[in-house]
Order: sequence, then C-alpha cells, then structure tokens
Amino acid sequence: MIAALCGALLILAFEPGTLGNEKFQYEIKEFSVPLDHFSFLSNASFNIRYLANDSYVDKKNPQPPIFFYTGNEGDIEWFAQNSGFVWELAAQQRALVIFAEHRYYGKSLPYGADTFNTSKPEHLAYFTVEQTLEDYAQLITYLRNGKQLPVVAFGGSYGGMLAAWFRMKYPHIVVGALAASAPILQFSGLTPCDIFNKITTAVFENAYNANCTANIGRSWKVFESMAATDAGKKQLSDIFHVCDAIKNADDLNNFMDYLEEVYGNLAMANYPYNSTFLSPLPANPVRQLCFYLKDLHQNDTDLVASMASALAVYTNYTGSVKCLDYKDSNAGASYDGTGWEIQSCNQMVMPMCANNNNTMFRTSNWDFKKVSDDCYKQFHLIPRPYDIVMRYGGRNLEAASNIIFSNGLLDPWSGGGVLQAPNNQINVIILPEGAHHLDLRQSNPLDPPSVTVARQLEAKIIAQWIKDF
Amino acid sequence: MIAALCGALLILAFEPGTLGNEKFQYEIKEFSVPLDHFSFLSNASFNIRYLANDSYVDKKNPQPPIFFYTGNEGDIEWFAQNSGFVWELAAQQRALVIFAEHRYYGKSLPYGADTFNTSKPEHLAYFTVEQTLEDYAQLITYLRNGKQLPVVAFGGSYGGMLAAWFRMKYPHIVVGALAASAPILQFSGLTPCDIFNKITTAVFENAYNANCTANIGRSWKVFESMAATDAGKKQLSDIFHVCDAIKNADDLNNFMDYLEEVYGNLAMANYPYNSTFLSPLPANPVRQLCFYLKDLHQNDTDLVASMASALAVYTNYTGSVKCLDYKDSNAGASYDGTGWEIQSCNQMVMPMCANNNNTMFRTSNWDFKKVSDDCYKQFHLIPRPYDIVMRYGGRNLEAASNIIFSNGLLDPWSGGGVLQAPNNQINVIILPEGAHHLDLRQSNPLDPPSVTVARQLEAKIIAQWIKDF
Repeated sequence: MIAALCGALLILAFEPGTLGNEKFQYEIKEFSVPLDHFSFLSNASFNIRYLANDSYVDKKNPQPPIFFYTGNEGDIEWFAQNSGFVWELAAQQRALVIFAEHRYYGKSLPYGADTFNTSKPEHLAYFTVEQTLEDYAQLITYLRNGKQLPVVAFGGSYGGMLAAWFRMKYPHIVVGALAASAPILQFSGLTPCDIFNKITTAVFENAYNANCTANIGRSWKVFESMAATDAGKKQLSDIFHVCDAIKNADDLNNFMDYLEEVYGNLAMANYPYNSTFLSPLPANPVRQLCFYLKDLHQNDTDLVASMASALAVYTNYTGSVKCLDYKDSNAGASYDGTGWEIQSCNQMVMPMCANNNNTMFRTSNWDFKKVSDDCYKQFHLIPRPYDIVMRYGGRNLEAASNIIFSNGLLDPWSGGGVLQAPNNQINVIILPEGAHHLDLRQSNPLDPPSVTVARQLEAKIIAQWIKDF
Repeated sequence: MIAALCGALLILAFEPGTLGNEKFQYEIKEFSVPLDHFSFLSNASFNIRYLANDSYVDKKNPQPPIFFYTGNEGDIEWFAQNSGFVWELAAQQRALVIFAEHRYYGKSLPYGADTFNTSKPEHLAYFTVEQTLEDYAQLITYLRNGKQLPVVAFGGSYGGMLAAWFRMKYPHIVVGALAASAPILQFSGLTPCDIFNKITTAVFENAYNANCTANIGRSWKVFESMAATDAGKKQLSDIFHVCDAIKNADDLNNFMDYLEEVYGNLAMANYPYNSTFLSPLPANPVRQLCFYLKDLHQNDTDLVASMASALAVYTNYTGSVKCLDYKDSNAGASYDGTGWEIQSCNQMVMPMCANNNNTMFRTSNWDFKKVSDDCYKQFHLIPRPYDIVMRYGGRNLEAASNIIFSNGLLDPWSGGGVLQAPNNQINVIILPEGAHHLDLRQSNPLDPPSVTVARQLEAKIIAQWIKDF
C-alpha cells in the first residue's frame, strides 16, 4: 500500500483473529459478473463475493429495503465488521443487508491466484470504478428479482465514493447513498494537494500540545543527520527495534515514508475508544502518541527515543510485536496489498504533497510524471488522472440527489470531501469530533455527541428515502 | 439496415448529391478518442469526425453556449443537413454548433476500412452506447478548453436517445438535452413489441381512407398465392419492375420484408412538405401512397398493380429509378449499412412484432433466440438485451432533469417514447401532427401549427437552461 503522501485511503492491517470474533453474522455468497461490462470482446465472467443477512427482513413486507454496502479496497468481511451502523440501521428498518466485495479484492479475483501476476499486466485491465459499479448494479438487479425495492447504498472512504457515484449514475437502482468520509474531490485540479497533510498536522497539534508536531517536524532532519554515519544508523535501528537494520539511504527513506503513513493512519483511526480498524489501537491514539512527545526535545537522541515510544502506540499497542517492519506497511493484512496501488495507477490518482514549513511532514511535491513512470514500471499502467472528474463531475454536483456526505473534521480525508451541499437534495453532515467514517461504525458509549446526532440524522433521512419510494 | 420489424430506427437512403446542396456550413474536424474508455487493456485510439460552426458565436460572450448534436447511426453530415432547428436556434442563442459523428459510422471508423471485416469480429467490440457517450464527453471537455460553458445536447431518433442518456449520465457536462422522437422505452419488458406496427397501421388508415390498410393487409396472401406458380412470380416481378426477378420463397420473403420496411419509413418521413430525408418523397407521402390504394380491390392483379403504383411514391418519386432493388434497402446509402444491424445485435435489442388481425402487417413474433442466433452467425455477437434498461433506468426516470422528450403522434417510434413526464424537470412535448422528429427539422411554411408551437416551447426551455447556467 502506498504511503499517505501517495494517496492510500485505507491501510489494511487486518489483525489475524478479528474475523474469529465476528460481531455481525452473514452468509457468504458468490455472484457471476462479466469481466468486461463495456465491450463485446469476450464473454468471460468471474465471481464476486457478497455477504447477505436477511434476518431483519419483515417477511410480510412486499417491498423490504436492501442496505447495500458498496465494497471498497479490501476483504469485504473486514468492512462488514467495521460498519456497525449499517447493521444497526438494518435492524431498525428491517432491511436485507448486503456487503458486496469489490472486484480484485478479497476473494473476488477475476483471474484467481494469477490476477496480480506481474508478467500478465493485461489481467489488471478491468480493475476500474465503472466496472465495479456495474457489478453492483447487476448484483442488485439479481437480488431484486424483478421487484421494485428501495435500495440504499452505504460506503465509507473509497466505498463512500463508490456509494455516491453509484447513486449519481444509477439513481433508478438505489434510492440514495450514505457516503461517509468519501473524498470525491481529492483529484487533480479540485483540491490543494497538501490538504491531507495539513489536516493531519492540525489533528496532531491539537491532540495534546503543540510540541508534538514540533518534534515530528524536526525529526526528519534528526533522522537524516543521525543516519549519516554507520554508528548513527545502528543507533536509529536499535532505538526503533526495526526488523531490518537501516543500512542505506533507501532504507532511511522507506523508514520515513512508513512514519508518515502511520501518522496519516493514526489521524484516520483517531477514534474515541479502542479499535482494531487499521491496527490495534487505544482510544484517542493521536493524543496517546502526542503524550510521548509532549516535551520539546532539543537533544537528538532524546527526541528519537521519545518518538520510538510514541510510535509504539500504533505499531505495538498489544505489546506482542517483536520488531518494527517498516518495509511492509501491509504486514498482517488479509490480502496482497497491491490493490490500491494499482487503482492509484489507473484512475484513483489523488495528488498529495506537503511543505515542512507549515506541516509536520517532509516537503514533497506532487510529481505526476514520476508517478506515471513508476506506475508503468510497476504495473504497465498509464494513469488517467482526469477519468474520475470527467465522469463524476468534480465539484459540479448540482444534478445529484439523495446523497448524504458525512465528514469528520478530524479526518485528513475530509479535505477532499463534499463539505457544502450543492442543492437541497444533497445532505452534508459535518462531525467536528469525527475521524475517518466514525459515523459508519457501530455505536459506542464513548462516541462524541456529534456522531450520535449525525447517525440520528442519517437514519431519519434514509428512512424518508425508503418511505418516499 | 434491418427492416422495421427488426428495429431499424432510420434507413439511410442517402441521395447522391444531397451534400452538394448543403444548406448549413461547417468545418469538418477530427478528434482522437480512446478505442476503449473503460479498460486499461490498451492505449489504442482513433479519430472521430465532428462538424463545427462558430459563426454565430458572440465573441464578447465569455461563456458562449455550445449546441452539441449527439450523432447517431450514419454519416454526421446527413444529420447536420436534416436538423435545421439546431442551426436556427444556434443563430438565436449565438451558440457554437457541433455535430459529432458516432463511432463506427461515416468516417469515424476505429479500424478504418478493416472495421467491418467479418473475419475480425473483435473489431466490433467497442461499438457501444457507453463508449460513444464517453467520446462525446471527451470532445466537449476538449471544446470547453477549461471553461465552464452551457452545453445543450440535441438528437433525433437514436441520436435523441443518446442526447437523453448523455444528460442523465453526464449532467455536469450538458445543461440539458432535446431528445426528439427518442424511443428510449422500446426495449424488452417496457413496451409491447407490436406498437410500432400498430401506429404505422393507424397512420395509413387515417391518411386517405381505410381501404389503404385493407388492401395492404390482404396483399401478403395475394403475393404468396401469386408467387406459388412460376408464371405468377414472373408477373409479380414484372408489375413491380424488380431488378432481380423473384424466383423462390426467399426472394418473395425478401420482397415482403422490403415492403414492410418501406411502410415504416413512410410513416416516419410522413412530413407535410417534399423531403429527401429517407428517400426523395412528396409532401404527405403516406396520403399519396394511400391515394393509389383508395379502392378496395377484390381482384388480385388489380391489387398488385395498384400497390406497384403506390410503392413508387417511395421508391421512385423522382422517376429516375430504373428498377426496384428490393434486395438492398440501403441502395444509395452513404455508408455500408451494417452499423445499425450490429448495434441491434449488441445492445439496441428493440423487440418488434405484429399481428395481421389488427395491423396491415404480416403476423410475426419476437423470437429473441432466433435474433441472438442470427447475430452470432452474422457478427459473432451475443446480444445483451437488458444492458440499456439496467444502465439507463427504463421507465424509472425520476432522478433525471432538463430533458425535453418530444414525440410526434404520427411517428411509429412514438410508441417507445417518453409520453409522460416523470417529474417537473422533464418536459414532454407531444406533436399530434408530427412524424419522426419533425420538430428537429428546419422550419417550413408547411409545418403544422403543433410543430411551430413545439419549437417555440423548446426554444424557451433551452434558453432558460442557458440562462440558469
């Protein structure tokens, strides 16, 4: 998975055992979809997975609602377990619950084990948003079985983008969409590329005290100066308990990329209670991390030692991790981790940059040429950075209806979210105390009031869509 | 082009010389589009043609409107010459006029002369509605050159379907669409398959007197009984002046298919003034044809002779045609004529049928299996009859906005048109005296009042869209 600077929406650090303690129950089913919905080149098809639970459905209702989660970049079971609000609302509305797995993720692989075979880049050809939305349209059409049913799309993050776009393009199939923390504006020409890192910095600055970002902002130079000598590299490796010693400039860069990614992830998963969403984390993990950085360290070794302690909040909250695997940010993930990288190399080109002067991150520019060259080298893909804006309208959403865009202001992705309603058929819900799609999660006694209120409003709007159907 | 029974929207009998007398002037340009917008299989591209005229544009207007004709099944110059209302309105609104040629038609051939090579059926893979709409979206994006401009889509018949769908799927690109005589409901499960032939019959019944349809309705059996002997076949061939003598059952069937197609075409092009749209025709050609069939003929030879005279209204109004080429309904067309057949074999599966008891046509059933088998035999295509309804919503158009659906009640395609507005942002305009997209044609002193009124209303609505932009 690419670092936050390159636009990873979610980092799937899927803890082994999470699925063992499933909170929500479902049947796992399969559905056959055409490999390519938009040409007549072949009639190849493959199966996508979906999860189904009809236990809430009122069998006497001739038109029971369907709650349809538009799966995003990962194993669909993981989303099912981390989107408790969908289940809670389904119980209220007596809806059929469906979580559909996104093609090319989880077990929905068009070419099976050969899907990501680097010697067959043509296998990646149909890994697009439009093909995925068509999968969902066909699955819903099948599930409706000829009946007119009110179907509501749900999604968080990239899944929220899909839910919103699904409603825009297939309003005859879904009556509305809850797009939680969906940065549909995080594309070229729509949003400044540094906004993600600016918001992350603000979250860290306000978590405990301002020394947190001051320390992190200074740390990059300290790492570089320390790593200038072999003794320093060893010291750095020892302090952070890295699995593979930092031996050269590439390793150091890798290490720093990893840290930046962790900071972004922490801001995203900065929930008010313990969670295992991206990694096993304490409540308010940014505050926890910043607690270790509350003192402004002028001494380099002190700073590095404090940072190592701070980092463990994310990397080793359970205390069971033996060493820091900075070379593989997907360690423990339930899939091969390349999916989002590939999407970042075809359509999901979300520019990212930072300036060390006004963020805690290293200065970096958005260099599309380099991104494109790397994509070609790695996947034989030439990114199409304007596909999404041309198809889904960018900021021009005036003709859209029945979409709830919810964004937490503690979420770095909120910078690319829809924060102003383009018309009165679109609802924008701001959660001042919310991290990444907190509202989509199961309710929790520690939820801040703004999230509880948001969920009530979302429930009310969705109930109205169903009623109006 | 397939006979009316099989769903040909337009029969392009492109008169040589029509383009020599161009009423409307334009530059012919080319624009490069990806062969496949929806996969990353290759980066192949090709050029589509478009016609441009900026002479009406107010150079001082920073946001001049664009009138964009979404080209349909034929050479785009033919549509430009037969859609005079677009030009008249462009002069009023000071718009840039663009007529875009549909991929796989005219000179917009992805594989050049090899496009329809039957030994390369894969060349037909990207001949779809969605690919075409993307071509138009990219062309408009290019023409706008980064500016926000009010773009209005125009189209008649299949071009009207494209205009409507374009607005539904790309509302951020076009502010609205005039969809003239666009039978977007002429698909499986939406509209009875006999409606086209019922309307055609009604038009013929009311054109002069009811003997017209009685004669035609009886003629099929007369042809069959006459063709039962060799002498009869010769007689039939002689009376109709056919180019190739009717020698067997296949020829006879071909001949009768041809007649049915002509009747449908006559109803479509039943304009109140001379026209050359589908063929050089007098004013009110159905009335002219029915004039020759005003007497109820009990004698078979009399009937056949009258029918031959009647048919000449369509086939030889100029008097210069040497013989009746019933085997090639595209004789004289400016293109290879297979385009629409191919689209009928991939997505544009529009069921047609008839009953001789309540129409003047032969009884025929809609046999999808046979259609599909024939498509595979001819083009290696397996039709997807539910693609269009699943993607564009069938009768569920509630979320659509800013589309004018106009339909003439004399047009057999009106049976598959949108005749009731699904909401107050959709305008339905009915022209009781209108044939196939008569309103889209240049105004004419012989226009019936309902067409003049319709054009005024269309102009008003379109002006409002531009004003509201």
